[in-house]
Amino acid sequence: MTSNKPTVGFAGLGAMGGGMAKNLVKNGFAVTGFDVYQPLVDKFVEAGGKAAKTPKDAATDVDFFVSMVANKEQNASLLFDGEDCVSKGLGKGKTFILCSTTPPNFLIELRKRLDEEAGRPDIKLLDCPVSGGTIRAADGTLSIFSSGPDGDLDAAKDVLECMSGNLYRMGGISNGTKTKTIHQLLAATNIITASEAMGLAATVGLNTQAVFEHVQSSDADSFMFSNRAPHMLKSDWHPYSALAIILKDTYIVTDTARGTLGDSFPAALANTAHYTYLQGVQAGMMKDDDAKLVQLYLPESQGDLVGEMSTADVKMNSSHQISKDTIVDLLCGIHLAASVEAMGFCKHLGGIDRPLMYEIISKAAGWNGMFTKSIPGMLEKDSWSLADCAQAEEVGRKLSEAVEKCRKINYPCPMAAAALQQFNFSTLRDKKLTSLSRGDR
Amino acid sequence: MTSNKPTVGFAGLGAMGGGMAKNLVKNGFAVTGFDVYQPLVDKFVEAGGKAAKTPKDAATDVDFFVSMVANKEQNASLLFDGEDCVSKGLGKGKTFILCSTTPPNFLIELRKRLDEEAGRPDIKLLDCPVSGGTIRAADGTLSIFSSGPDGDLDAAKDVLECMSGNLYRMGGISNGTKTKTIHQLLAATNIITASEAMGLAATVGLNTQAVFEHVQSSDADSFMFSNRAPHMLKSDWHPYSALAIILKDTYIVTDTARGTLGDSFPAALANTAHYTYLQGVQAGMMKDDDAKLVQLYLPESQGDLVGEMSTADVKMNSSHQISKDTIVDLLCGIHLAASVEAMGFCKHLGGIDRPLMYEIISKAAGWNGMFTKSIPGMLEKDSWSLADCAQAEEVGRKLSEAVEKCRKINYPCPMAAAALQQFNFSTLRDKKLTSLSRGDR
Repeated sequence: MTSNKPTVGFAGLGAMGGGMAKNLVKNGFAVTGFDVYQPLVDKFVEAGGKAAKTPKDAATDVDFFVSMVANKEQNASLLFDGEDCVSKGLGKGKTFILCSTTPPNFLIELRKRLDEEAGRPDIKLLDCPVSGGTIRAADGTLSIFSSGPDGDLDAAKDVLECMSGNLYRMGGISNGTKTKTIHQLLAATNIITASEAMGLAATVGLNTQAVFEHVQSSDADSFMFSNRAPHMLKSDWHPYSALAIILKDTYIVTDTARGTLGDSFPAALANTAHYTYLQGVQAGMMKDDDAKLVQLYLPESQGDLVGEMSTADVKMNSSHQISKDTIVDLLCGIHLAASVEAMGFCKHLGGIDRPLMYEIISKAAGWNGMFTKSIPGMLEKDSWSLADCAQAEEVGRKLSEAVEKCRKINYPCPMAAAALQQFNFSTLRDKKLTSLSRGDR
Repeated sequence: MTSNKPTVGFAGLGAMGGGMAKNLVKNGFAVTGFDVYQPLVDKFVEAGGKAAKTPKDAATDVDFFVSMVANKEQNASLLFDGEDCVSKGLGKGKTFILCSTTPPNFLIELRKRLDEEAGRPDIKLLDCPVSGGTIRAADGTLSIFSSGPDGDLDAAKDVLECMSGNLYRMGGISNGTKTKTIHQLLAATNIITASEAMGLAATVGLNTQAVFEHVQSSDADSFMFSNRAPHMLKSDWHPYSALAIILKDTYIVTDTARGTLGDSFPAALANTAHYTYLQGVQAGMMKDDDAKLVQLYLPESQGDLVGEMSTADVKMNSSHQISKDTIVDLLCGIHLAASVEAMGFCKHLGGIDRPLMYEIISKAAGWNGMFTKSIPGMLEKDSWSLADCAQAEEVGRKLSEAVEKCRKINYPCPMAAAALQQFNFSTLRDKKLTSLSRGDR
């Protein structure tokens, strides 16, 4: 039986890409896969895929080539290096779909190299980064932020829809990747914030399971908190998602935010997340699950404290005054500052519709409760300052109290401290001196 | 009368370069100058220099070519763009001395482009960034961080010594620029910290002149504090040194610290300084003196408050408990964390002798009192963590109290808050849980 479906080449058969490629096979596409690591190719063949010896082989005679290799360097190599690269194999007018997360500028560069260096202006390039993790990759229910010429996206519809549960159209080339970058600002800040919060709960001797459940029932929840905190509660340090992965994305986020000298965006929270991740790198955690970063916040001899405290029978003690609600306040404060930062970043980068960005983040791994609660009320004004956020005053005040409780016990809370400064700066704009400071003279 | 001194070409006759070039003329060198802005060339001719119409003209028949143009882009253009560039004019075996501040990697790139692209491996390239400001530029008393092949540095001795009061040899190409980058980490953090401190003093109604004098007589002083605070005290917003200049250097510092994905240095204080400068850019201060950044910390209607409070007759009031000593504690805490960060950055970049780096910073614009007080005791161990700093416990405790006083009045103190987290992280390493947190269960 011959399938009417287009044929597909695929590179990058790892945790994400392997699931995506096998899902295409399961849905009747003829897929030829390539990976530099042979065991991954073997598994793909077991699932019904065809093996290719080189990128060129995988690209020859296919209608679409999907890349899910790790980064921009691997993509550049895949497309252009040597005689066995994709651009030497892909037929006239065929389509290269970039699903990896790379910097927005890289897409512009790729298009140019295809046109000029490779002499292949006929190759259609689609910028389609994905979000959702390995389970949704295997299920074909990823969020895909597709961008490129409309006609080329229309033609690729069958392949893209097979891989996605939420397929968004973001505009021209690089807009898909911009969307992913903005989304990853929240993913990056939410992940490290989960560690900061759970580390605090354990440090002050709260029952961490109870804290977890309390957070989940509150505005302080985030996709990443709900996903990562359980690893901490079980002291399960299996690398479901290694620090190396979110570090790479954080690097892209902060690199895109710093832009060029004259066109930088002050991403306070993303930068704080970045240098906290780098402390994890210094502590040798690059290949560990990113949830293990909670150990940065704990004494070295107490790395499993969140897990130990998940079954502890504890009574609340008053001296540090840190309760389940303090953890909620800390999370809400950071999440709100990060949410406003992400939307400001979206505006700074340009070209992305803010209401659509809101919708995307609401359904994706970068989601947090404060995003849902606060961003809709700010969309019309499109001013992304905490000074223009209705919830900021109360959330900022509670964050301030939480930060003070951390300070009293010398608990490091870089995300909370950085967020608090953003609240403080926002309250300065246009205000008169407070009665406290003036009256005190 | 013919001079025995070598002839010099010079590009970039602005505030720094103009003074350097005229100082060479004053000392008997025959200097041919080029600048894209004709009035600067005219002034240089009035001072006895020769005018060149193009970079090539300025480079023809000279022994040394000194560049003090603004940045790497201008230097690349100066050397390589078009038919009138320096590499088309400079004679065989002559020397190009780069005095501008550029990223360390740029020097490596320049050498390669000279060798390969321009076919000029004969041109000697010296990497000699400077520090010290316009007065020392004109006096020929700059600090110069020279690097390159020893023989080439020997041959350039007359020119370099004429421009410098402190001439350091840092090793091979790019080490001079690394040294400048490490130094600028402290310059950048010290400048914004001066604003954070003086803004606080004014906000709580202290006599700011008295605070200034108190700081200068304490360990909290820095070259930048002593230089910038007087501008604030006089509400003198003349752009002696524009935000654009320190922003450019901060960009180089954080860019060099982020390095590549797998080789980043977590420069918490430098990154915090950077995104605070970016808030200044957003507030439209790019061309303003960097001391004007104190207005970020003040209500919009109170931009001259530091000046107004310099003559105020005030009594200390107890409710916010912020005194002259609180300002000292805040400065000392930030300066110590930044000093340790700078030396850690030095170690991370490699190739620079740490005792020499200590000596350089002690005499240059990046100096602060805590650097002098704390770094010598840490040199032998060469471990650049606050955990290995004898003064950290006391300084951190006092910083913590200062941060709390800021929090109570919602005063934004991003540098202090970021520094405090570094102290908190350092006290976590190897310690048992504190009696406070364990005892509270």
